[in-house]
Amino acid sequence: MSGSSSGSSTSSSPQKRVYLDFNATTPLAPEVIQAVEQSMHEAWGNPSSDHEEGARARAVINQARDDVARMIGAMPQDVLFMSGGTEANNVVLHCAVTHFRKWCLSQDSPIYHHLRPHIITTKVEHDAVKLPLTHRYAIEADVTYLGVENLPEAVLESIRPSTCLITVMLANNETGIMFSVAHIGRLLAEVNKKRENEGLFKVLLHTDAAQAIGKVPVDVTDLNIDYLTIVGHKYYGPRIGALYIRGLGHKTPVYPLFYGGGQERGYRPGTENTPMIAGLGRASLLVHNNVQDYYTSMKKTRNYMERQLKKVFGNQVKINCVDPCIPMDPEACSVPPRGPKQQHFIFPRLPNTSSVSFYYRQVSGPEILRHCRLVQASCGAACHAHTENQSK
Amino acid sequence: MSGSSSGSSTSSSPQKRVYLDFNATTPLAPEVIQAVEQSMHEAWGNPSSDHEEGARARAVINQARDDVARMIGAMPQDVLFMSGGTEANNVVLHCAVTHFRKWCLSQDSPIYHHLRPHIITTKVEHDAVKLPLTHRYAIEADVTYLGVENLPEAVLESIRPSTCLITVMLANNETGIMFSVAHIGRLLAEVNKKRENEGLFKVLLHTDAAQAIGKVPVDVTDLNIDYLTIVGHKYYGPRIGALYIRGLGHKTPVYPLFYGGGQERGYRPGTENTPMIAGLGRASLLVHNNVQDYYTSMKKTRNYMERQLKKVFGNQVKINCVDPCIPMDPEACSVPPRGPKQQHFIFPRLPNTSSVSFYYRQVSGPEILRHCRLVQASCGAACHAHTENQSK
Repeated sequence: MSGSSSGSSTSSSPQKRVYLDFNATTPLAPEVIQAVEQSMHEAWGNPSSDHEEGARARAVINQARDDVARMIGAMPQDVLFMSGGTEANNVVLHCAVTHFRKWCLSQDSPIYHHLRPHIITTKVEHDAVKLPLTHRYAIEADVTYLGVENLPEAVLESIRPSTCLITVMLANNETGIMFSVAHIGRLLAEVNKKRENEGLFKVLLHTDAAQAIGKVPVDVTDLNIDYLTIVGHKYYGPRIGALYIRGLGHKTPVYPLFYGGGQERGYRPGTENTPMIAGLGRASLLVHNNVQDYYTSMKKTRNYMERQLKKVFGNQVKINCVDPCIPMDPEACSVPPRGPKQQHFIFPRLPNTSSVSFYYRQVSGPEILRHCRLVQASCGAACHAHTENQSK
Repeated sequence: MSGSSSGSSTSSSPQKRVYLDFNATTPLAPEVIQAVEQSMHEAWGNPSSDHEEGARARAVINQARDDVARMIGAMPQDVLFMSGGTEANNVVLHCAVTHFRKWCLSQDSPIYHHLRPHIITTKVEHDAVKLPLTHRYAIEADVTYLGVENLPEAVLESIRPSTCLITVMLANNETGIMFSVAHIGRLLAEVNKKRENEGLFKVLLHTDAAQAIGKVPVDVTDLNIDYLTIVGHKYYGPRIGALYIRGLGHKTPVYPLFYGGGQERGYRPGTENTPMIAGLGRASLLVHNNVQDYYTSMKKTRNYMERQLKKVFGNQVKINCVDPCIPMDPEACSVPPRGPKQQHFIFPRLPNTSSVSFYYRQVSGPEILRHCRLVQASCGAACHAHTENQSK
């Protein structure tokens, strides 16, 4: 269950419902809806057109890129708009593997020419990382799946000469647990210095920040990462995403997943979805301006709910993944979200997320939820449902 | 220049402008804007969620899929939503090449195991077909690029044992010329019967119908095609697209270009862009209900413009690609758009498109357009502008 407000009611339902599934998707902020609407009316031109209609659309996109970049402390030119987080994550894997292969082929020693790329990840990544690895790269790459305990050290210990990418989510979508990507980033920087001296491939670092953005501050410099995935509909924005690439095209490699017109400098072709991009920019601006308040409010609401659950269900309920300093007294854990860099470690759990187990025999989570008249929550990631082609 | 109304004014400009660049993009129909807005307010749930918010979003998507399918005479289950036409075209190439490779590897004779796939296309395709072929498939496939004269016969003559795909656009974005895809489809059906008897790979047929939809009736059965690309923003819809696949997954192969959640039955993962999908459905419904009127109105307006150009500029202007039965007397060419199947041959030019040359020495097209105070038109496809990565 993940909630960032205590409830949500919609006009089409006679009954007020309590929506607790904000990690599946958020409603759109009124400001975001307004930005999308304004763009549909006023910036409908093709952004590639040389005339005034095109120029107006380009201006909207440039503004949105600035706003997305500002939210994560990035340069605007390092942000590419994409259809969503799934595409962004797939692009990152494609970039790392393609670049590694090119690098191998450029080496004098034939020992490199057929070296298989190696990727390090966790066992708890979203399907948009997990499934490309188990399907597309099942044969052509080696993958190490790590448990989440002792993560930074385990990542470092897993690095091989053929490692091309480490991809670790910033926060888990089901438990809200945050992973120490910044720590990995710092350790990896040291490793990469040594690798450079040894003539080895520079290991790239990616984080899927889909669930973290909008709940805690996310800064690409603090994180020390090369790629970062942004997903609008997880922070009251629209159903598109973006990919941050540090020093896009010169410091960090980028290879398009598909080809077409010259949009996004040819790295992500296809006529830009201007209204959705405008909405993503507006959602990012809201986060940039308000993330500290969001953090405080979400945590307060979530902790209140957890206290109430304990009060009502006692030992029949367990709040999972509770960090040591939160449990039943949220005021005792007044860590400022915008602290010094090293304080990133002390957000072990997203402020909006609750993972809850009920100890009733022979009653499953879905059954409990089916009996809830008002509460809308989930027993896992929404995208695991309604699948036909997962095993192909 | 491509216009489907005689002019367009926007609230942000004090001067009424004449927009003649509808092949670059169209504004959104008011009904489409309304559908997008309604969906943002009421169907923002994650379509994969099991609760009511999810169900409402699923219902919107199902309705849109029905409407898109009806527009092209297809079954709803044969339609996959995608981020746009560029993605759809790239997916088609990926499907054909992947399926051909799998088929080759399944053959007993080792002669097939390293057979390179062969693709037939034209020299005038959109970059979303042309550039994947020249970049992604430059090494791994053989491609035949045909001139547009004598197309059906030339296509048939180019087929080799290794041919896996024919991709020919339904109408050209710059000239409006329509290609005889239906004719190719009928001839290919005969060829494929013979190939089946000979144990050869069934040649797949794709058409990028981006420019044709909304201007002339498009029916997948008439066309006899396996894949058809749909692009919303070319027919007053939003900036997403769809791909029609005949007998998706059982008659015609489909392989996802990327992996993730189970959306679109796993064939196109990524949380669905419900508002844009709703808009695409509404735009498709409008086309389904009104395409005959659109055709008549567009042709009348376009032909009026061409007559006026001739009247003002005389022999200094040339209207290109004029079909024999239209020139200066549109009433003499009263071909009903919804005629018997064989009448598809007699729409040689889209009703909304004008390709015009001016014979003034040392004056280029862009220079002429820069001097136009009111008219917004283009000298070619918009997506050729602002390119950085085309040659990579």
